Amino acid sequence: MIVKHYLDVDEEETGFEGVGIRWLVTPKLGAKNFAMRYFTMKAGSEIPIHSHDWEHEIFIMKGEGVITNGEEEHHVKPGNFLYVPPNEPHGYRAITDFEFLCLIPAKKEAIPEDKW
Amino acid sequence: MIVKHYLDVDEEETGFEGVGIRWLVTPKLGAKNFAMRYFTMKAGSEIPIHSHDWEHEIFIMKGEGVITNGEEEHHVKPGNFLYVPPNEPHGYRAITDFEFLCLIPAKKEAIPEDKW
Repeated sequence: MIVKHYLDVDEEETGFEGVGIRWLVTPKLGAKNFAMRYFTMKAGSEIPIHSHDWEHEIFIMKGEGVITNGEEEHHVKPGNFLYVPPNEPHGYRAITDFEFLCLIPAKKEAIPEDKW
Repeated sequence: MIVKHYLDVDEEETGFEGVGIRWLVTPKLGAKNFAMRYFTMKAGSEIPIHSHDWEHEIFIMKGEGVITNGEEEHHVKPGNFLYVPPNEPHGYRAITDFEFLCLIPAKKEAIPEDKW
């Protein structure tokens, strides 16, 4: 088994200002079915609405944010969890510094090449 | 998208004294690739070493515990995460009240019938 601490994994840029990602469990580590990532968003930062043909399973760890599919807005905080189906639009806005786990299936198009 | 709080999901018995499970994201909810569960273990409780042909992706949420594969013992606390490969033995002992997320692939033999 592999045991680490999420803060020991380098945080990488996402292309969105104030939004970082740590790839915790990846295909490279042996995980061939799904991958675990840890997102941090600084207060006020945003990930604009987008969609793709894979799902998200999310668990909110710290802070408060708003997650929307363009129709409903969900104010979320630690202990909330989400299932975002494939192809459903989703966007995120950090009210405070905001952190969450987000897991995705191990699809080639969903995971950068250096994580394989 | 589906948004809930983990405390609003009924905790179920696991067959191990002091160990409860909440099935958060399941195939029934639409998740066809992997499932998210939340385990709570009362201080002193144990899940004996066992193995199966599916992996675990684990993130420690609260408290302290020891996770072993029968050879190494890992003392873990919030922020630690684990990848347990298929067929590797694993057992858990709660030092304090101990809580963690544990995700598994959506295999028929890994998920109870009422979660489909």
